[in-house]
Amino acid sequence: MNNIKELDKKYVLPTYARADVEFVSGNNARLVDANGKEYIDFTSGIAVCSVGHANKRVNDAICKQISNITHISNLYYTAPQARAAQKIVEASGYDMKCFFGNSGAEANEGAIKIARKFGEKDGEVKRYKIITLEHSFHGRTITTVKATGQASMHNYFGPFPDGFVYADNIAQIESLIDDHTCAVMVELVQGEGGVQPLDKKAVQDLAKLLKSKNILLMIDEVQTGVYRTGKFLASNLYEIEPDVVTLAKGLGGGVPIGVVMTKLKEVFSPGDHGSTFGGNYLSATAACEVIDILSELDVSGELTESIEYFDSEVENFYEAHKGIFTSKVGIGMMCGLRVKDADTLAKVISNARDEGVMVLKAGKNTLRLLPALTITKEEIDEGFNSLNRAVASL
Amino acid sequence: MNNIKELDKKYVLPTYARADVEFVSGNNARLVDANGKEYIDFTSGIAVCSVGHANKRVNDAICKQISNITHISNLYYTAPQARAAQKIVEASGYDMKCFFGNSGAEANEGAIKIARKFGEKDGEVKRYKIITLEHSFHGRTITTVKATGQASMHNYFGPFPDGFVYADNIAQIESLIDDHTCAVMVELVQGEGGVQPLDKKAVQDLAKLLKSKNILLMIDEVQTGVYRTGKFLASNLYEIEPDVVTLAKGLGGGVPIGVVMTKLKEVFSPGDHGSTFGGNYLSATAACEVIDILSELDVSGELTESIEYFDSEVENFYEAHKGIFTSKVGIGMMCGLRVKDADTLAKVISNARDEGVMVLKAGKNTLRLLPALTITKEEIDEGFNSLNRAVASL
Ligand SMILES: Cc1ncc(COP(=O)(O)O)c(C=O)c1O
Ligand SMILES: Cc1ncc(COP(=O)(O)O)c(C=O)c1O
Repeated sequence: MNNIKELDKKYVLPTYARADVEFVSGNNARLVDANGKEYIDFTSGIAVCSVGHANKRVNDAICKQISNITHISNLYYTAPQARAAQKIVEASGYDMKCFFGNSGAEANEGAIKIARKFGEKDGEVKRYKIITLEHSFHGRTITTVKATGQASMHNYFGPFPDGFVYADNIAQIESLIDDHTCAVMVELVQGEGGVQPLDKKAVQDLAKLLKSKNILLMIDEVQTGVYRTGKFLASNLYEIEPDVVTLAKGLGGGVPIGVVMTKLKEVFSPGDHGSTFGGNYLSATAACEVIDILSELDVSGELTESIEYFDSEVENFYEAHKGIFTSKVGIGMMCGLRVKDADTLAKVISNARDEGVMVLKAGKNTLRLLPALTITKEEIDEGFNSLNRAVASL
Repeated sequence: MNNIKELDKKYVLPTYARADVEFVSGNNARLVDANGKEYIDFTSGIAVCSVGHANKRVNDAICKQISNITHISNLYYTAPQARAAQKIVEASGYDMKCFFGNSGAEANEGAIKIARKFGEKDGEVKRYKIITLEHSFHGRTITTVKATGQASMHNYFGPFPDGFVYADNIAQIESLIDDHTCAVMVELVQGEGGVQPLDKKAVQDLAKLLKSKNILLMIDEVQTGVYRTGKFLASNLYEIEPDVVTLAKGLGGGVPIGVVMTKLKEVFSPGDHGSTFGGNYLSATAACEVIDILSELDVSGELTESIEYFDSEVENFYEAHKGIFTSKVGIGMMCGLRVKDADTLAKVISNARDEGVMVLKAGKNTLRLLPALTITKEEIDEGFNSLNRAVASL
């Protein structure tokens, strides 16, 4: 561990203030660090390890696939990519086509490119403006940083591309629409912003408004997607029909992957977009297996059961510590508890680690829980026992 | 195959005009398609499969790693990431630090962010302009599309970020520098642009000029890096000391990964940049093993031997078909033959596939060969036998 810390400090740019822990192995929602200490993991790599650590089905699928081929090129057909696209589209219930990249930021770059090309009309006023929400998070490329509705992030890296407009909230969007607006992009549950779900009725009204104005509704499901909220997409839960959806995090079970899917099946022509690695044999195979595993849990009712059990434990925990937590937010396995102040939150997170449970921060003062969707009741119980001890020792 | 083609057409956005072939397995520089037909692969996934298909060492390392952990989060230490960073920096011979993303485009986004933050000076005129070359290729995000010196790509997706300036050639760069210039970004061998190496002396002079003006020299080694030109970096071959280097393609042996490395070790503070998947256990483990394999081949002299043998075979092939090819370009295992016209090139590529060897196009009229760096003499011989038949039947 000391050696790794030194190497990291010496050779890795300091873009993260890392917590002082190095994990060496895991199993479903359990982790073991370099000192042999065990943890329950309520973070799952920030919603990435959707089917838990060291998932045997995913790993077997990966090892079998790479014993044949890991990567070729998008110049040729890649069977697992075609199959992954089918599985994603069918699970979504929408009539869409997919493009594969390698991250949430790349998925959102694809969405923005779709919106901009959709807005392109020769001879007319070009529509190029995209409205996003305050406290959103859409990625770390220069364009997705600018799409992110956090003024504090719009430093240093400019000139940024023009055309992003920020709404304080969903109600304000209508008043910001003008002749140049081509799309609205939102997270249905703001993840980094504080596990804040949008109001369902307001989103449905927005969808209707945008449809009437021929403006695209683009849903960033990088964090909410792949059953995180209980349905394949949070868009399914909100019962809307978006024009564009982006996915990443949970889709590959830990393998880098990002997807933008859209109803606008003809929007791109060959040459308009591309990715060297996107949708290769490795990442697409992992995505296929992850979707299979989670859709089985969905169909069998086990996913709903786990979500209900987890939610009731969060509720119990919240009720027991109302002096510390001011409200409970989130949907499905995307849970947040607002903490009375940021200092207390920092202490909860660090005590939790000492007590053997990993939890996350979101926004300024939200304790965020994003467990694997395959977490067991025993793991949930153990995690909350540790969390209770962490809070008791505040 | 027909089924896969149909699925692909139905569910995948048509951003590539795919060639009519589906590979199902590979071994080093050999591929087998869905009909059982065998090929020699002179493309290696466009320089990605640097250690060949189904490399046992890389696959064993991956399967061992993922049996423990695939991904956690950059909030914690990841031992393989720290080790990969050390290996990359040591192999480069430069005193640098790394940031890990998931593609070439993401690596270049990192480079551009570094240049822009470097150019930021409170109270002074901000330096933000980045000079790139005509015919360059830097990626498919909105910002890297704009960084790419191909006007035909600057459609549809605007407004693009300002601040990119294109030089017709390296000699013209000096005249384009102004008070706002913070960096110059170039490929030392333009890959997509036509396997065109820059002149070594001219690059060294440019490096001196930029140093004297405190302007960053950023080398896009996404395609040239990881021993593709015979040295770990083409920058090593050119005997320059860049400020920023980007890597991707060959680094993970097929696992999505991208790296930006820089001498400016303090340029980023925590929060300035990030990536969910970047440098996780999976991709960093693959990179460590790829670097180990290739550095062993380098030290033993086998890499030089393979490059010399491949080069002499390209030369023989070129000499034998001077009516078709007008010049031989490239460095190391990044080889190009200019074809007299684009139609002939298209025929060469399709005949080659029929004859059982996969080759690539670059620019308008360049036949491009990017074999695995582990390719054997037998595979090289077989490939050129097929290529000779492909050209004979024109
Ligand atoms: C909603 C949302 N969009 C986009 C991103 C960016 O994803 P990535 O880090 O994979 O680029 C994130 C990452 O946290 C996210 O939560
Ligand atoms: C020199 C160079 N830079 C950047 C890229 C973009 O890499 P990626 O497709 O992984 O985003 C490429 C891809 O061909 C490249 O050749």
